[in-house]
Amino acid sequence: MKQLLIPIFFLSTSLGLRAEDGHQLWLRPHAAVPVTVVAPAKNSVLLATAKQELQQGWQGTAGATVTLTLKKNKAIKYDGFQLSAQGVQASTERGILYGVFELLRRQQTGQPTTNEVSNPSYELRLLNHWDNPDGSVERGYAGKSIFWRKDSALVVTSRDKQLWQEYARANASIGINSSVLNNVNASPMILSTEYLGRVKAIADVLRPYGVKTYLSVKFSSPVLLGGLKTADPLDPAVVKWWRGKVQEIYRQVPDFGGFLVKASSEGQPGPQDYGRTHADGANMLADALKPYGGLVMWRAFVYSPNDKDRAKQAYNEFVPLDGKFRNNVIIQVKNGPVDFQPREPFSPLFGALKKTAVMPEFQITQEYLGHNIDLAYLAPMWEECLQSDTYQAGPGSTVARCTNGSVYRQAHSAMAGVSNVGLDTNWTGHDFAQANWYAFGRLAWNSSAKSAQLADEWLKLTFQNAAGGATQPAAAADWNAKFLAPVTQLMLASREAIVDYSMPLGLHHIMSATHDHYGPGPWWAPPKMRADWTPPYYHQAAANGVGFDRTKTGSDAVSQYNEPLASQLNNPATCPDEYLLWFHHLPWTFQMKSGRTLWDELALHYDQGVQQVRQFQRTWDQARPYVDAERFGAVQNKLRTQSGNAVLWKDACLLYFQQFSHLPIPAAVEPPMHTLEAIITYDTPPRPPRAPRQP
Amino acid sequence: MKQLLIPIFFLSTSLGLRAEDGHQLWLRPHAAVPVTVVAPAKNSVLLATAKQELQQGWQGTAGATVTLTLKKNKAIKYDGFQLSAQGVQASTERGILYGVFELLRRQQTGQPTTNEVSNPSYELRLLNHWDNPDGSVERGYAGKSIFWRKDSALVVTSRDKQLWQEYARANASIGINSSVLNNVNASPMILSTEYLGRVKAIADVLRPYGVKTYLSVKFSSPVLLGGLKTADPLDPAVVKWWRGKVQEIYRQVPDFGGFLVKASSEGQPGPQDYGRTHADGANMLADALKPYGGLVMWRAFVYSPNDKDRAKQAYNEFVPLDGKFRNNVIIQVKNGPVDFQPREPFSPLFGALKKTAVMPEFQITQEYLGHNIDLAYLAPMWEECLQSDTYQAGPGSTVARCTNGSVYRQAHSAMAGVSNVGLDTNWTGHDFAQANWYAFGRLAWNSSAKSAQLADEWLKLTFQNAAGGATQPAAAADWNAKFLAPVTQLMLASREAIVDYSMPLGLHHIMSATHDHYGPGPWWAPPKMRADWTPPYYHQAAANGVGFDRTKTGSDAVSQYNEPLASQLNNPATCPDEYLLWFHHLPWTFQMKSGRTLWDELALHYDQGVQQVRQFQRTWDQARPYVDAERFGAVQNKLRTQSGNAVLWKDACLLYFQQFSHLPIPAAVEPPMHTLEAIITYDTPPRPPRAPRQP
Repeated sequence: MKQLLIPIFFLSTSLGLRAEDGHQLWLRPHAAVPVTVVAPAKNSVLLATAKQELQQGWQGTAGATVTLTLKKNKAIKYDGFQLSAQGVQASTERGILYGVFELLRRQQTGQPTTNEVSNPSYELRLLNHWDNPDGSVERGYAGKSIFWRKDSALVVTSRDKQLWQEYARANASIGINSSVLNNVNASPMILSTEYLGRVKAIADVLRPYGVKTYLSVKFSSPVLLGGLKTADPLDPAVVKWWRGKVQEIYRQVPDFGGFLVKASSEGQPGPQDYGRTHADGANMLADALKPYGGLVMWRAFVYSPNDKDRAKQAYNEFVPLDGKFRNNVIIQVKNGPVDFQPREPFSPLFGALKKTAVMPEFQITQEYLGHNIDLAYLAPMWEECLQSDTYQAGPGSTVARCTNGSVYRQAHSAMAGVSNVGLDTNWTGHDFAQANWYAFGRLAWNSSAKSAQLADEWLKLTFQNAAGGATQPAAAADWNAKFLAPVTQLMLASREAIVDYSMPLGLHHIMSATHDHYGPGPWWAPPKMRADWTPPYYHQAAANGVGFDRTKTGSDAVSQYNEPLASQLNNPATCPDEYLLWFHHLPWTFQMKSGRTLWDELALHYDQGVQQVRQFQRTWDQARPYVDAERFGAVQNKLRTQSGNAVLWKDACLLYFQQFSHLPIPAAVEPPMHTLEAIITYDTPPRPPRAPRQP
Repeated sequence: MKQLLIPIFFLSTSLGLRAEDGHQLWLRPHAAVPVTVVAPAKNSVLLATAKQELQQGWQGTAGATVTLTLKKNKAIKYDGFQLSAQGVQASTERGILYGVFELLRRQQTGQPTTNEVSNPSYELRLLNHWDNPDGSVERGYAGKSIFWRKDSALVVTSRDKQLWQEYARANASIGINSSVLNNVNASPMILSTEYLGRVKAIADVLRPYGVKTYLSVKFSSPVLLGGLKTADPLDPAVVKWWRGKVQEIYRQVPDFGGFLVKASSEGQPGPQDYGRTHADGANMLADALKPYGGLVMWRAFVYSPNDKDRAKQAYNEFVPLDGKFRNNVIIQVKNGPVDFQPREPFSPLFGALKKTAVMPEFQITQEYLGHNIDLAYLAPMWEECLQSDTYQAGPGSTVARCTNGSVYRQAHSAMAGVSNVGLDTNWTGHDFAQANWYAFGRLAWNSSAKSAQLADEWLKLTFQNAAGGATQPAAAADWNAKFLAPVTQLMLASREAIVDYSMPLGLHHIMSATHDHYGPGPWWAPPKMRADWTPPYYHQAAANGVGFDRTKTGSDAVSQYNEPLASQLNNPATCPDEYLLWFHHLPWTFQMKSGRTLWDELALHYDQGVQQVRQFQRTWDQARPYVDAERFGAVQNKLRTQSGNAVLWKDACLLYFQQFSHLPIPAAVEPPMHTLEAIITYDTPPRPPRAPRQP
C-alpha cells in the first residue's frame, strides 16, 4: 500500500498547477469575496491603496462592509491601528493601510479578528539595501539590484516601476516604512543630480505604499563630488555644501527620510580623518537635515587593527559621546559586537547609550549564514537578541526595550535590516529567505513577536493552497499536520543547525575569506593580513586550548556588560555554553556542563549540525505532496548542497582544531569525508570551481 | 580515565619508531636467530638465495639445522615443496626457495610447520605490468614504472637493480615466477635491440629469485619495427621476421618466458586485419617460440561496437577456435565478460574451451575499484571467481579447476594479475594495496586459499611489531583482538562496500570516463561516442526499468553459461541479487527477494556502502595505537577521501536513476549532499580540480 502511494504523490506534483516561481511572496492571489469599503473622502493615494487591497483580498463574509476610519486616538501610536468588527481605525493613512493588511492576513491565516489595537514597536522600520550604482549588491545573493542598473542608470522602465511597486507593497504588507536605497559603502555619485533623478522616480513609486526613501552617503562627498578640499565637518564650506545638497534632495523628494552613514570604519572616510568625533560628523549632517524633518542614522560598526579586541571598540568610541548627538541622530548598532555572526552576544552598546537614540541593525541577507544556499530562518536569532537582558536599567531591560523607547526616552526609534532582495524572480534567491524579509518586518512592528508564530504565518501565506488544493483535496486536509507543523519545526531549528555545524559554543568569525564568507576557513591568515581580519585572531586555537579570552583577566570585554550579566559571562562555570568560547580561552579537556570535555562537546555540536540538515532534508522530502513541484525541487536541491556544506564545515573545523587538541574525534561523530589538506587546497586561491559536494 | 588514555596513544605513536614508509612490504626485517643451513653443493644462485633468506629470517630454535634437499618426488608438482621438521625438499631450485619462504612465513605468523607437501595450483604465476617504455603505467596509481624511464631508457643504474631485486624477492616470497615487463598495449620499440638490452638487464636481476621474464608484443611489429609491408601471420616474411626476433631475444635472455599478445582488440592490430583468425596469429608466434620452450599468452579481451552485447563477443570468437591453438598457446581470459568491474559473473569462456589452455587474468591494480584511494582488498573478488561453478564438466567444475588442469588436460596452466606496482616508496600507492599483490601470488599458488587466511597472514607480516612492540608492550598484547581481528574484517568487507556504493545488484560499467574510471558517470555518453563505451549501454535505465537484458529473450548471453546455471541466471526469481541487473532489465518496482522494490533495494545498497566506509574509518581510528604513525595517517586520510567518494557515488547514481524511476529515495537512506547538476558539471570536461571531499 505504501509502495503504491508514493508514485501517486509524484504524479500529483508533476501534474501540478501552473509553474510556481515564488515571485508573489506571501501575497498570493485569492478568489476575493465582494466587500463594501467605506473610506474617508480624503483624496489620498495611501487610502486608495488600502481600499484596493481590501477589495482584491477580502475573504470574509460576502457583501460585508469594512469601514476605514482616520481619526486621532491616544491608544494608537505612530502608524498603529485598531481592528474591530467594523473595520480599521488609525491616526495616520499608513495606519489604515497596515490595518487593512493585518485584516487580510488574519483572514488568510485563519486567525480571528478581535477588537484590538496594534502599535508598532519602532517608529521606523527600515530596509538597508547594500546596492551599488553599478547594479551589484554587496553581500547580495539574489541577483542584481532592483534599484540600480549598470550602463543605464537613469532610464526608468515600466518594468522597473512595476518591480518597485511590488517591492513597496510587500514592505507595506509587513509594516516596513523606510528604505535606504544604496550601500553603506556609498558611492559619492549617488548624490549627483543625475542619480537623484532616479531616486525621485523610486520615491514616487514607493510613496503610495507608505515607504519613505533614504540614502547612504559617503562622508567625503564634498571632496569627491563637490570639489572641496576637505570634508571636515566643522569647515563652513563643507557645512554649506551639505546644506545645498540636502535642499536639492528635498526639492526632488519632499518626504525624503535622511542619511545612513558608515564613517571612519573599515577604510571609509569620516570625521576622524579631520580630528573630529563621530558626534561632530553626525551632527553636521543632522543640522542640514533638521529643517526638513530628516534623520541621520550613524553606524557604530567601527574598529581599527590597533586594538587588541575588535569586539570592544564600538563601545569604547561611542559611550563617551553619549548625550552629544542631535536628537535627529540615531546610532545604528549591529546586533553583535563583531559582525553578524551566526551567533553573537548582543552588543554592549544596547542600553549603554542612555541619552542617545540607538537602533538595532540586523542582517537579513545571509552573509555568514549560507548565502542563498543554506536554509536559515533568522527570526530566532533576532528574537534572541531583542529579548536579551542588558540589565542597564534593572532586570527586564531587554535590547528591544532599550531601543524602542520603553526604557529610555528617545526622540526616535528604529530597527534596520540589511535587505536580501535582488532581481531574482523569487526576490531572495532561496525561497525560504523570503521568510526573513517577512519576519524582519513583523518583528520591527512587534519586537515581542515570536519566531514560531511568524513562521506559521509566513508558511500559511506562502505555501497554503499553492499546489495542493484543487489537484489534491486529500493532501490538503493533512496540510497542517504534514506540512505546516514539520516545516515550522524545520525553520525554527535551521539557524541553530548552522551555528552547530559552523561556529558552535561561541566560536565566531572562522569562515572562509576566499569563498566570500561561505564555508569554513579557520586557518586563513595570509602574511601581512591585518590580524583582526583573520580567523585565528578570533578562535585563538593552540595546544593550551581554544577561544578568545574576553574575561576580566583577558581583553576585559566582559566588563562592557552590566551586572549581573558581566559576572555571569566572566565565569566559565556560569557563562552559557553558546557564548563560552566568545568569552573564554579554555583547555581542550575543560569539563563542560554536560560532563564531556570541551573537545568532545565541540565535535558533537559539529556533528549534530550535519545530522540536523539531513533531518531537514527528510522533512522536506516528506512535504513533497503539499508543495508545488518548482519550489519543492528548488528547496530540495538547496538542502542537498547545504548538506554538503555542513559536512565541509564539520570536517574542516574538527580536522583543523585537532591539530591543536591532539584528541581523537569521538566515535559517535560521523568520520570526516575530506582531508584537511584537500579542504585547505580548495580554500586557497586561485580558487577552483566549487566542488560537487558538494565532491 | 578514558580521557587520560587517549592522549597517551597519540604520544606513543607520535614518538614512535623510525619513520615507516611501507617499502619493506610483508618482508620486514626481524632479529634473526642463528641457524645452520645444509644446502646441496650445487653452484646455484637460487639455492644461494634460499640459504641467505633462511639465515636472515630464521626465528626458530637457535642453532637448529635446516636441510635443503633437491630431489625428485612424485608428490611434488612444478615448483612445489615438502616441509618437514628437518627442512625443505623440492624437485626444483625454485621449489627450495619457495619452501624457505613458506617456512619463514609460518614462523612469523605463528603457524606450525608440519610435514606436508605444498604444490602450486598453476604452473605459471604471472604479473602483467602495463608499463610503457616512456615510464608511464597504464592504469597505474603508484607512480611511474619500475622498469622503464623516460629519456634514459637504456641506462641501468644501481638503484634500478636494487629495486628490481627487491621486486623479484617480493614475488619469490609469494610464489610469483613470471613477469611480463610491458603494457599489453605494446610499443613496437620494446623489441628493438636497444630495449632488449634493458630487458636482459632486468632478467638478470629477476633470475636469482626465480622470476622469468616475458614481453608484450605488438602484432604489427614486423611492419612498424621490421619495415615489412605486412604483419599477416601467414606471410613467410613475417614468420621469418618473428623467428629472427625470437632468436635475438633468447640470445640475450636464454630463459625468456614468451609473449603476451593483445591483438585485434580495442584498436590494436591483429590477425583479423589480414583475414586471419586468432589461432593463425597465436600459432605463428607459438611456432617461433617453440624451439626455445617459450609460450604465447593470447588475450581474449576482444569486442567490436557492432555486436549488440559486448559481453558475448569473446566467447563467440574463441569457442569456434577451440582445439586449433598450439599447445604452447594459452588463452588469457579476464575474470568477467566485460572488464574488471567491481563485480561480474565469471567469463563463460572458462570451461567452455575444452581443448585449449585457458588462464584467468585478474586486475590487481584498482582501475575500477578506487585507484590508490579506496581501500579494496581484492582476494574475495578473485576467490569468488575461482570458486564459481561453470558446470562445464558437471558440478564442481569451478573456474579454478577448469583452468588449473584439474578438469581438462592442459599443456600449461597459468594465472595472471595486472600489477599495481610503481615507483611509489610503498610500491602500491595505498598501503593496503600491497595486500592485493600478496594475495594474488598466494592465490595463484593455491587457488583454494581463503581470503580471510591471506588477510590474516598479510596483516601479521606487514603490521605486527611495526610500531607497537618496544614503545607499547600493553598495546602489543592486545594486537590480535584490537588490531588483527577488526582490520581483517575491514579488509574482507572492503570490496563488497565498493560494490554497494558504486555498482550494486549487477550494475556495471557506470563509472566516470572523465576521471579515468574513478567515481560515478552513469550519464556519460558524448555524441558520436561508440555506445559500448558509454554507461547507458550497460545500465539501460529507462522509465520501464533498469538493467541489461541478457536473458534468452534479450541478448541471450545467458546461454553462454552451462546448465543448470544458465536457467538459474535466466530467471529473475532465481538469479542471485548480485547479478540481477547484469542479466535482467527489470521494473523499478520489481519485488526483490527481500520484499522491497528494486528501487528501494538499490538505494539501500548504495547507502550501505557509504555507511560501511564510515565504519571502516571508525575501525581504523580505533587501530591507531597498534600502527606506526606514518601508515596510520596515510590510511586514515585515504579512508576520508574514499568516504567522500562513496557519498559521491551514492548521490550521483541515486539522483541519476531517480530521473527514470520517479520514486523517492527511502527515508532510511542518507539524503544526498550533492545535486545531480553539480556532479555532472564536475564530471564534464574541462575537468575542474577534484573536490575536497571530496571534494
